[in-house]
Amino acid sequence: MKLRIIVTLKNGVLDPQGKAIQHALGGLGFEGVEDVRAGKIFELELADSTSDAAVDEMCRKLLANTVIENYRVEKL
Amino acid sequence: MKLRIIVTLKNGVLDPQGKAIQHALGGLGFEGVEDVRAGKIFELELADSTSDAAVDEMCRKLLANTVIENYRVEKL
Repeated sequence: MKLRIIVTLKNGVLDPQGKAIQHALGGLGFEGVEDVRAGKIFELELADSTSDAAVDEMCRKLLANTVIENYRVEKL
Repeated sequence: MKLRIIVTLKNGVLDPQGKAIQHALGGLGFEGVEDVRAGKIFELELADSTSDAAVDEMCRKLLANTVIENYRVEKL
């Protein structure tokens, strides 16, 4: 089965990469860029027998830092 | 308006980060991880007047390297 895991910074956590992109877009002449947040996405191909609990554990143990990041699992 | 831009490596482009994650998951005892591809996601808050063409240009000029990466725009 194919999963997509989206990892984003929690609200309130500073995102310097996002801010840098926002300023760079402004510098390139794009107007009206009010906010940019950067995150990560992982596309996993897993054995069909993998349980939701195992996927959750993968996220918490390796893919996301749950102190500062949220994650979301989407089945494709 | 809020957009989500997903940037992933094109098929056929080596993804060492994804491979490292795949091996790390195996090392943590997770079985059946057949493939991992890593990508980036950007959540943009744009003025409602921003055209689709402008968004496309942002992707091509700054957010994605279209030589090796695909991008996909999703409206939220």
